Formats: sequence, structure tokens, C-alpha cells
Amino acid sequence: MPRSRFAGSLSTPCVDVAIDMGNPLLNLTVDGFLKIGAVAATRAAAEDVFHIVKKGSISKNNCEHTLKKMCKEGAYWGTVAGVYVGLEYGMERVRGTRDWKNAMMGGVLTGALVSAASNNNKDKVVIDAITGGAIATAAEFIRYLT
Amino acid sequence: MPRSRFAGSLSTPCVDVAIDMGNPLLNLTVDGFLKIGAVAATRAAAEDVFHIVKKGSISKNNCEHTLKKMCKEGAYWGTVAGVYVGLEYGMERVRGTRDWKNAMMGGVLTGALVSAASNNNKDKVVIDAITGGAIATAAEFIRYLT
Repeated sequence: MPRSRFAGSLSTPCVDVAIDMGNPLLNLTVDGFLKIGAVAATRAAAEDVFHIVKKGSISKNNCEHTLKKMCKEGAYWGTVAGVYVGLEYGMERVRGTRDWKNAMMGGVLTGALVSAASNNNKDKVVIDAITGGAIATAAEFIRYLT
Repeated sequence: MPRSRFAGSLSTPCVDVAIDMGNPLLNLTVDGFLKIGAVAATRAAAEDVFHIVKKGSISKNNCEHTLKKMCKEGAYWGTVAGVYVGLEYGMERVRGTRDWKNAMMGGVLTGALVSAASNNNKDKVVIDAITGGAIATAAEFIRYLT
């Protein structure tokens, strides 16, 4: 069951969200979407807070714009993460092992899917697939280092 | 002792590189640099191979350009990874615990350092620090999911 925990500050309070979709693949995907979406929304908010603090003034427009950006970026990162987590899980089931090749294939497929969904240039889809695979492999290697 | 294993094909042959710098922090950093550098160099090579295959012709210039790009991208990704791995290890030693906050702080510092080293715009350094922290946090969350 995916349990997403969002910490409002660096220590307390916490909000626990638990959703059970009745299927491990769906659970993983939803969990990835929620967690990474929350991270991306926080990033967008932090970026806008910095801009507002720097400018020294705040308006209703700022808030609306920030909120829209949070939703947009959260949904985008969340979708990418959900697709990746689901594909990596699928790879693991199909291949029957856990290693960096799952991450690489997951990254390649995610890059290709996300790129194909957002543009029509076939060359760019291939390049994005290669880049996605490289990023996923790099993240997997760092995971074993730290 | 860092042991970097590069697989030439998807199964064999393998090259094992082991370098001991006599210090766990340096070992991690060097290991991160080598592994992620290799991934980035492979990505650059794969991208250029795709372009060459698509164009259907190859020249000496292509090879030189690809080699230069592999070195440049490998060094860049490797440096970023080395800095991040070193900082996350440092965070762990300073804070005494292992959790996603190490990854976040490591990402923030890495983003700020890399951005400060490559450009002079102070605003961009802050934005890159926020983005670095978000990416590292997202990667850490995905690590627990998969």
C-alpha cells in the first residue's frame, strides 16, 4: 500500500496519505506520482518564494501564478516518476532480477514515452530515450554508492 | 575501496577498476566520478551513433567530435556526481543519520556549487540549488519505492 508522507516543515507536522489501488503496479505508480509530484510542487513554490522575497512585494497574481505552476510541475514530474516506477517494476517482473539494467530499460522507455507524448519529432524521442536511460543508470549507480 | 565495473556489452566483457585513495570520502568521490562519467560518456556516444546511423555516413571528423564530446560530458556528469556523493557522505557524517534530508542537502549544495562554478548570476545559483535539492530528493524517494 503506498504511504506518502509529506513533512510540512523539516521536522513536524506530517500528513500521511495511504491509497490502496488493489494492485502492486498501480500502487507503485500512484505512490511515485504523489511523492515526486509533491517534491516538484515544493520546488516550484520555493523558486517563486525566492523571486518574491527578492522583489520584496507580493500580489494576488503572484499567488495564482505560483499555484498554477506548482500544479503543472507537480503533475509533470509526478507523471514521469509514476511511469518510470511502473516500468521499472514491470521490468523486474519480466526479467525476474533486480539490477541496474532494469533502471536503464525503465529510463529508456520512460524517456521515449514522455518524449513521444509531448512532441512529434522522432529523432528527439530517440535522444530523450538515450538520455532517460543514462539518467536512470546514473541514479542507480549513485544509489549503490551512498 | 571504490570498484568501478564497466561492462563493454550488456553481459561481457567487464573491466574492473579499483583505486584506493586512502580516505573513504575521496574513495566515494572518485568512484562516483568514474561510474557516472562512464555513463555520461556512453550516453554521448550512443547519441552520436544514432546521428551517424541516421545520416548513413561516417567521417574522421565525426569520430573526433564524438570523442571530444564523450570526454567533456563524462567529465561534467562525473564531477557533479562526485561532488554530490562526497557531500551526501559528509552530511551523513555531520548529521549522524541516513535519510532523505541528507540527499536533499547534498543536492542543494551540489546545485549551488556547480552553478556557482559555471556562471556568475547569483539568482541562477539559488534556483539551481533549489532544483538540485528537488532532483536529489525525488531520486531518493524513487529509491525507496523500487
